[in-house]
Amino acid sequence: MCSAKVSNHPLDLSESSAVEPGPWHYGADYAAVYFTADTSKLKELVPRPFAPVDGTCMAYVCEIISVSSSRPEIASDDPDRAIYKEAALGIRCSYGATRGIYFPVMWVDTEWSLLRGLVNGYSKRLADRIVLTKLHPLNPGLKPVSEGTSFSGYCVKGSEIVLRVRVDIEKRGDAVDLVAFGPTFGIRKYPTTDSTQSGVAEAVEILKSNSRFSDVWVGSGSAVLSFDLGELRPYRGAVYRSGFTISGSKVLERL
Amino acid sequence: MCSAKVSNHPLDLSESSAVEPGPWHYGADYAAVYFTADTSKLKELVPRPFAPVDGTCMAYVCEIISVSSSRPEIASDDPDRAIYKEAALGIRCSYGATRGIYFPVMWVDTEWSLLRGLVNGYSKRLADRIVLTKLHPLNPGLKPVSEGTSFSGYCVKGSEIVLRVRVDIEKRGDAVDLVAFGPTFGIRKYPTTDSTQSGVAEAVEILKSNSRFSDVWVGSGSAVLSFDLGELRPYRGAVYRSGFTISGSKVLERL
Amino acid sequence: MCSAKVSNHPLDLSESSAVEPGPWHYGADYAAVYFTADTSKLKELVPRPFAPVDGTCMAYVCEIISVSSSRPEIASDDPDRAIYKEAALGIRCSYGATRGIYFPVMWVDTEWSLLRGLVNGYSKRLADRIVLTKLHPLNPGLKPVSEGTSFSGYCVKGSEIVLRVRVDIEKRGDAVDLVAFGPTFGIRKYPTTDSTQSGVAEAVEILKSNSRFSDVWVGSGSAVLSFDLGELRPYRGAVYRSGFTISGSKVLERL
Amino acid sequence: MCSAKVSNHPLDLSESSAVEPGPWHYGADYAAVYFTADTSKLKELVPRPFAPVDGTCMAYVCEIISVSSSRPEIASDDPDRAIYKEAALGIRCSYGATRGIYFPVMWVDTEWSLLRGLVNGYSKRLADRIVLTKLHPLNPGLKPVSEGTSFSGYCVKGSEIVLRVRVDIEKRGDAVDLVAFGPTFGIRKYPTTDSTQSGVAEAVEILKSNSRFSDVWVGSGSAVLSFDLGELRPYRGAVYRSGFTISGSKVLERL
Repeated sequence: MCSAKVSNHPLDLSESSAVEPGPWHYGADYAAVYFTADTSKLKELVPRPFAPVDGTCMAYVCEIISVSSSRPEIASDDPDRAIYKEAALGIRCSYGATRGIYFPVMWVDTEWSLLRGLVNGYSKRLADRIVLTKLHPLNPGLKPVSEGTSFSGYCVKGSEIVLRVRVDIEKRGDAVDLVAFGPTFGIRKYPTTDSTQSGVAEAVEILKSNSRFSDVWVGSGSAVLSFDLGELRPYRGAVYRSGFTISGSKVLERL
Repeated sequence: MCSAKVSNHPLDLSESSAVEPGPWHYGADYAAVYFTADTSKLKELVPRPFAPVDGTCMAYVCEIISVSSSRPEIASDDPDRAIYKEAALGIRCSYGATRGIYFPVMWVDTEWSLLRGLVNGYSKRLADRIVLTKLHPLNPGLKPVSEGTSFSGYCVKGSEIVLRVRVDIEKRGDAVDLVAFGPTFGIRKYPTTDSTQSGVAEAVEILKSNSRFSDVWVGSGSAVLSFDLGELRPYRGAVYRSGFTISGSKVLERL
Repeated sequence: MCSAKVSNHPLDLSESSAVEPGPWHYGADYAAVYFTADTSKLKELVPRPFAPVDGTCMAYVCEIISVSSSRPEIASDDPDRAIYKEAALGIRCSYGATRGIYFPVMWVDTEWSLLRGLVNGYSKRLADRIVLTKLHPLNPGLKPVSEGTSFSGYCVKGSEIVLRVRVDIEKRGDAVDLVAFGPTFGIRKYPTTDSTQSGVAEAVEILKSNSRFSDVWVGSGSAVLSFDLGELRPYRGAVYRSGFTISGSKVLERL
Repeated sequence: MCSAKVSNHPLDLSESSAVEPGPWHYGADYAAVYFTADTSKLKELVPRPFAPVDGTCMAYVCEIISVSSSRPEIASDDPDRAIYKEAALGIRCSYGATRGIYFPVMWVDTEWSLLRGLVNGYSKRLADRIVLTKLHPLNPGLKPVSEGTSFSGYCVKGSEIVLRVRVDIEKRGDAVDLVAFGPTFGIRKYPTTDSTQSGVAEAVEILKSNSRFSDVWVGSGSAVLSFDLGELRPYRGAVYRSGFTISGSKVLERL
């Protein structure tokens, strides 16, 4: 027997089957920790033309529901293409006179979030597994989020737990309690493997809009990372929901 | 270099490290489809002393947050031990004069939910992957759940998509719109591999309490299963949240 | 507690941490099926400047051990970075007067094989799971490979079994029993998400050398694919081991 | 649309679908480390009626091809049901005057190896991921196993790397270079969740036969475990292939 059947979800081999055209919309649940680290260590993680500013960093784990403008019904029809988890380290950076945030690494757990991110200039990597605390209002054994509630999350890649965060909630907060970093910087990079090929290397700013926040809770936080940032001095942990839209990234300069 | 280190989360090799003592509390988000199937086919899936009644079945996919009474903080400290997904087929059955529901198979995606379920008498199996639609209120590209919203879910095991459900929402509903099956029946079974061993084979009723429901939406539904139930006649799909407590299971009779 | 520790395997955030510089060496165990399909259907899967020739295709599932020249010890030190599985559909194609093979899709199960392949011009996608028959000479219940032995393999992605192959061995074969397709064609493509960005679109030929084969067994084969290729006419199945080196890909033309 | 289709691999919901009747045959590739640990620490890991003897332990990671006598063709037809990986810690123990080995934990990465093992009395747990060095004779960048070759393996569960081993090969060895522990001891345990239920608690000896070894290489080894065994004193690492048959387990005493 040798047959080819048309599947219920016909396989789309076009370019857009892995990365659909944007803009892309996001709704996310975060557990984040803000801290300062050794600026000399951070420099090793930040490529030119960006530079660390004051050692301020954030580490987070989140679950994201994301759809493209062109196909929002994918969340209903093919949920695997709309849900992912992400863990990242972000560093306050400057590009000339502009302050923003650069993420030296951002782990995700699906193909499409990996490839979409790489095309936009995020230094995305694929995690084996990302786990984050979730509560449920109808669970008879769990209390609603309040003072004393803790959230933890971690990211596994290969033989490493590459990132852990923990937030111990002290009180309800607001969007102003979250550290505002400004624009997100990145590097679009498509390397070459032969001298006949064209490559791409561009410093970019992510085109982000529609930001909104809700369900903010703040408290103390801790983070463990698998690379050396010197001594970490945490000053806040936060749990919150956020939504935003990314339409692409604009080139700051070619490298 | 050969060393043993004490980990942050010391490995507990005691019996309770895989299955913590109950009662166990659950909060779950369901996409469920109610249908009738061919009773003669259902008979092949239901072991004595239970028997199908009228062909009524349900198929669902859900995400569950579960903790034991003895250690509810596990949801905060070790979220991997509190979150799982489940997909199942349930059949309206009778045990003598009592009507209830028997699940010939219930796939889950974590070790602890597999083993806890087997000990309580559920016919649990381990899925490779269970996926279910999730929306997010802050995603700028998604509308809130309403008429016309669809949810879908599926369960993958080996080289099979063993179960698919889809619910197309028509209106807000209430707990009374969900089919009430009554008690849950099961079989506790621990087989033997040698004549010197003791085995267990007991028909049981799950000890379930604290049931509560919220966010019920109803509409039409469809289901595809990887085994032959004859023609399926769906009569309702529903999306809802539910909470409950399971304290164990009581023996109805030894087999 | 908030600390950053240096891990045993320090996280390398440089470009080479995901894709090490080539050349890359491969050793693979294949179960492959050769068949012809409807050329009009194949045309939809093959982008210009390539064109299907005579409907000849291959579908395979394999396990690969791969290392870069720059770091062959990775197989010993970090085995996760040297082992992957792959499933693919290849189509005999022409580029001008040259015949070769183009793979409209090649699923793999690790990040680094995905990204390395994309950079070289393969249309790689990430599978959820790829499974392939493996035997063991010391297993008391298994016979050595011989006439009558069967191998099967499949690839799961999302809610689809996207490819299945089965080979029923009839006799020992040789490298000449495998269909020789000639050079491997591909498309290097790095899309843009903003008009300020540079993109890449190049038709390439993979630079492959050092090919060698062993343990060839041939027989009948069957394949099931999740996209419509019309009627498939299989004419051979084969199980074999192969080794080769890829140093990059040279540009045939810019698109 | 609501339908039930008969799948290519019809789902077997009978008891044997998860655990097929034995005997079961195994062929495995091991990377193992022998060491001594602090006997007082080992005591905490060994339940009565077994007791540690002299601190001798082994830690290993392996890949196993396993089939039941009743259905050896499963390796060809459904390879997912014949391949698994395992990582374990074994401790030299005594049962009365008999010396053997007890494994306080044995992680595996498939459902059926988990359940089959639990029924036979192994303290099996489900790993998230087990990885082990594999070489390939046709890979142009890899040398055959010889003096200086290293193998490493690890097991991930939740947020822990629960076991790591590394073997640095010094010379070809023979089966006599592997530590012979004697019989394998275990505990068959099926707990209860209600006073009306029957439980099982039996000390057993695994019924193992047909042992054979090949491709033995020995050298130095190191191991890292996620629980405290005091100081580890490794005295040998070994890489080898082994085959054997397990027909069940016989009860030594009820607990």
